[in-house]
Amino acid sequence: MKALVDRIRAEARVLPGGLLKVDGFLNHRLEPELTLAMGRAFRDRFEALGVREVDVVVTAEASGIAPALATGIAYDAAVVYARKKRPATMPGSVLRAEAPSPTKGGVTPLFVSTEAFAPGDRVLLIDDFLASGRTIGALAGLITGAGGELAGIGTVIEKTFQDGRALLAPRGVPVVSLAAVDAVDEATGRVDVREG
Amino acid sequence: MKALVDRIRAEARVLPGGLLKVDGFLNHRLEPELTLAMGRAFRDRFEALGVREVDVVVTAEASGIAPALATGIAYDAAVVYARKKRPATMPGSVLRAEAPSPTKGGVTPLFVSTEAFAPGDRVLLIDDFLASGRTIGALAGLITGAGGELAGIGTVIEKTFQDGRALLAPRGVPVVSLAAVDAVDEATGRVDVREG
Repeated sequence: MKALVDRIRAEARVLPGGLLKVDGFLNHRLEPELTLAMGRAFRDRFEALGVREVDVVVTAEASGIAPALATGIAYDAAVVYARKKRPATMPGSVLRAEAPSPTKGGVTPLFVSTEAFAPGDRVLLIDDFLASGRTIGALAGLITGAGGELAGIGTVIEKTFQDGRALLAPRGVPVVSLAAVDAVDEATGRVDVREG
Repeated sequence: MKALVDRIRAEARVLPGGLLKVDGFLNHRLEPELTLAMGRAFRDRFEALGVREVDVVVTAEASGIAPALATGIAYDAAVVYARKKRPATMPGSVLRAEAPSPTKGGVTPLFVSTEAFAPGDRVLLIDDFLASGRTIGALAGLITGAGGELAGIGTVIEKTFQDGRALLAPRGVPVVSLAAVDAVDEATGRVDVREG
């Protein structure tokens, strides 16, 4: 997705640990036009890979919500975001998984209500980043645990120098990223990015 | 907003403490059409009150993101969501406020990067619930602390039997809610709701 790659080139900053600061357009501040374009780009890419009907788009709060909602808009599909702390308003039957958090440290639980989607639902999993793949792997486990049919995995930015794609490969579904970051250099701030 | 009121009547459940479970369409699962309609409804209501131009829509993660993004789409305005835990990717200058959390207990900090919006920006504050008004009050403090010009406050569901509207009144800006819940009854599960 060219508009996204251009934006990453112009704005992304490399932080200690190889973290990428993209909070001007992805995980703190959002621009509606760019965000909606992400949803259309996911749909275009997944449809070309045969994913034509989607019942539910699943993501994790909070940074996944905007790209997931944009994808839900593009497919006219419901969106479910896993909660990281079980709210008092989720009293019923709940599925739980755990994922490590590279940007916040520690382990983050993920909660999805069993009412959120139905067995047999075709589910697209959308998140902001694919790095280690463990958050997305945990979400994929929740989806299949609830009887959902995982149709594909989409991430806005993939760090191809981490092992996420390899970790997810055994699931046998298409993995689409809108931008691929092949290398970052903390010393110079250089970000090697291309369309995913 | 009639579609929202109908949905609350059909689905909302009353939980202990008078909490309202609306996670089928507001804070866990989202429907694109209903969510986008919330954004258009906010714009219609605020425009009728003279709020015609908005630079930034501000909310708090996570449940505020969807209605805020819908409002940003309706106004073609950027969206900023305050973080509740400061991520490693927010290393620069940050504004912090604190709000109590009725659904999770304790006090929740709210962080906004000083880069997120500029002094003089016309800001619309959007959140999912108006109850005690303290989360929204904390967000309003962040906005004015950053030099933003608070133009209005919009909430999807207002609990009129709590003190939120009175707490926010001294700010002197329009407060719009799309649905007003005037009473809930834990014993019978009754929810008295009307258009806001």
